[in-house]
Amino acid sequence: MAAPGRRLIPLLNRVLVERFTAEMKTKGGIMIPETAQTKVQSATVVAIGPGRRNEKGELIPVSLKVGDKVLLPEWGGTKLEIEEKEYHLFQDSDILGKWES
Amino acid sequence: MAAPGRRLIPLLNRVLVERFTAEMKTKGGIMIPETAQTKVQSATVVAIGPGRRNEKGELIPVSLKVGDKVLLPEWGGTKLEIEEKEYHLFQDSDILGKWES
Amino acid sequence: MAAPGRRLIPLLNRVLVERFTAEMKTKGGIMIPETAQTKVQSATVVAIGPGRRNEKGELIPVSLKVGDKVLLPEWGGTKLEIEEKEYHLFQDSDILGKWES
Amino acid sequence: MAAPGRRLIPLLNRVLVERFTAEMKTKGGIMIPETAQTKVQSATVVAIGPGRRNEKGELIPVSLKVGDKVLLPEWGGTKLEIEEKEYHLFQDSDILGKWES
Amino acid sequence: MAAPGRRLIPLLNRVLVERFTAEMKTKGGIMIPETAQTKVQSATVVAIGPGRRNEKGELIPVSLKVGDKVLLPEWGGTKLEIEEKEYHLFQDSDILGKWES
Amino acid sequence: MAAPGRRLIPLLNRVLVERFTAEMKTKGGIMIPETAQTKVQSATVVAIGPGRRNEKGELIPVSLKVGDKVLLPEWGGTKLEIEEKEYHLFQDSDILGKWES
Amino acid sequence: MAAPGRRLIPLLNRVLVERFTAEMKTKGGIMIPETAQTKVQSATVVAIGPGRRNEKGELIPVSLKVGDKVLLPEWGGTKLEIEEKEYHLFQDSDILGKWES
Repeated sequence: MAAPGRRLIPLLNRVLVERFTAEMKTKGGIMIPETAQTKVQSATVVAIGPGRRNEKGELIPVSLKVGDKVLLPEWGGTKLEIEEKEYHLFQDSDILGKWES
Repeated sequence: MAAPGRRLIPLLNRVLVERFTAEMKTKGGIMIPETAQTKVQSATVVAIGPGRRNEKGELIPVSLKVGDKVLLPEWGGTKLEIEEKEYHLFQDSDILGKWES
Repeated sequence: MAAPGRRLIPLLNRVLVERFTAEMKTKGGIMIPETAQTKVQSATVVAIGPGRRNEKGELIPVSLKVGDKVLLPEWGGTKLEIEEKEYHLFQDSDILGKWES
Repeated sequence: MAAPGRRLIPLLNRVLVERFTAEMKTKGGIMIPETAQTKVQSATVVAIGPGRRNEKGELIPVSLKVGDKVLLPEWGGTKLEIEEKEYHLFQDSDILGKWES
Repeated sequence: MAAPGRRLIPLLNRVLVERFTAEMKTKGGIMIPETAQTKVQSATVVAIGPGRRNEKGELIPVSLKVGDKVLLPEWGGTKLEIEEKEYHLFQDSDILGKWES
Repeated sequence: MAAPGRRLIPLLNRVLVERFTAEMKTKGGIMIPETAQTKVQSATVVAIGPGRRNEKGELIPVSLKVGDKVLLPEWGGTKLEIEEKEYHLFQDSDILGKWES
Repeated sequence: MAAPGRRLIPLLNRVLVERFTAEMKTKGGIMIPETAQTKVQSATVVAIGPGRRNEKGELIPVSLKVGDKVLLPEWGGTKLEIEEKEYHLFQDSDILGKWES
């Protein structure tokens, strides 16, 4: 989020993500772009909110951290365009999973 | 909210905001108005409510403060026109994020 | 609510309000009626309920008091006509804000 | 509810009411029936339930008592005809307010 | 529920009822069937469930007992035909009231 | 559920049932199949889940046991065909009642 | 989930499953594929989330483990295609049951 002099801090349990197109080997060893392989899209978490508050006012922290590679749902989220780059905001409970090495 | 002799205090967890149109540099250094860059709109918080009450009657304070630069959702809120200026009221949980320097 | 011998006490967290049309100065100093300025309407609280009860049966008092000048939502509420005057009943959580001097 | 040998006890937080048509003086002193004055209808509470039970099984008593003059909502409730008289059952939380002398 | 060798025990907070058509005297002393007098129907409770369980797993007993004469809502419930007799199952919270002598 | 080497354990508060068609005597002593008598269907519980978990993570056990004869609702549930036999899965709170001898 | 260098960890109470087509003996001893026998589909759990958090922020663990053979609901879930293999993500509360030997 390298807007000059500005940085977006998501509120509550929202996370800001940037999609990526990974190259992955198939069983036969050929590199194909991920978009040809998956129905849902992967993204990198670039900013997270402090978490939502429960009925008592206590913070329930976000279950993801900056840098996590995540699997986005097929629908939902809010598209943002800043500095000609596209970002998406999701509630952390809508993120389907994370990719681990 | 400089209406002569009157000031609006939002109730519960509502926040009163005034939209702004920021100028931002693109990568190529050209100044373009933000409205051409983002799908959602930015605004300045001009007044906040005391917070909502939970089931026990305790106050859960608003997660924003006056002066915060925030990112508005694409829909919702209530438009107010006072003294020929336009304001919007949102519940704080509908605000997507805040901009930090 | 000057009906002879009768006074309406709202139940739970309801508030009874009477709309008003304020005169306000514009920046140029000309007096114009508020209805030309705002999309939502202002009103004076003329009676309040005791508050709603939470799951434990405890009273959560109404967040407004008689005499408060408030901002009504664009929709909702129940219209009453008593003694040829028009009143409205709202739940206090639907009132958008209050005007302070 | 003077059905011979039978009396209706509402269950939970329901109240049984009987509408009335009050005569009220206008400012000019002329008696006109209430139905010409109000959009909602007034009624007398003739029976109340014991109250609803919360999640712990505790009784939350009804906020009205027999004899209260109340303001009914414009919609809802269940119409009963017993002994050629018409009654209505409402949940107490749907009653808008009560009239006090 | 005199099915040979079988008896229905409702689950949770359900009650099994059998409708009746009472004869009642009008003010003028003439006997007319209740169905001509009421918009909703009366019934006798013939079996009750043990009650529903709250969030903690505790039983909240049914607020009616076998033999109670009750007032049914105009809609809802499940019709059963056993041994050529018609019964209805309702959740106890849907029953409007009970008749007392 | 006699699939060779496999048995279905329902999850949470689900119960697996198998419908039956009982013969019952009418008042006149003639045996007629139950399907001609009831609008809803009866079934035998063949497997139950461990129960659902409440907000604290505690188990709320299923209110039925294997072998119970139950009354199914008119709608809902999931049909399974295993080994050419038909079964149904229901949440235990959707089962209307049980038959006792 | 043998994507080179990547593994999907479902978030919250989600489980990642891979469908299978089992061979099962009928009563007459003939092997027929399961898809001809069942209306819903079976799958193997290949990854599970840590569980969802309750109102207090405590983890409620997933009620399934990797390797469990489960019965999928007829609808819902999210289809993923990775490495030319098809997977599905479900919330654990949507899984109908598990198969035991």
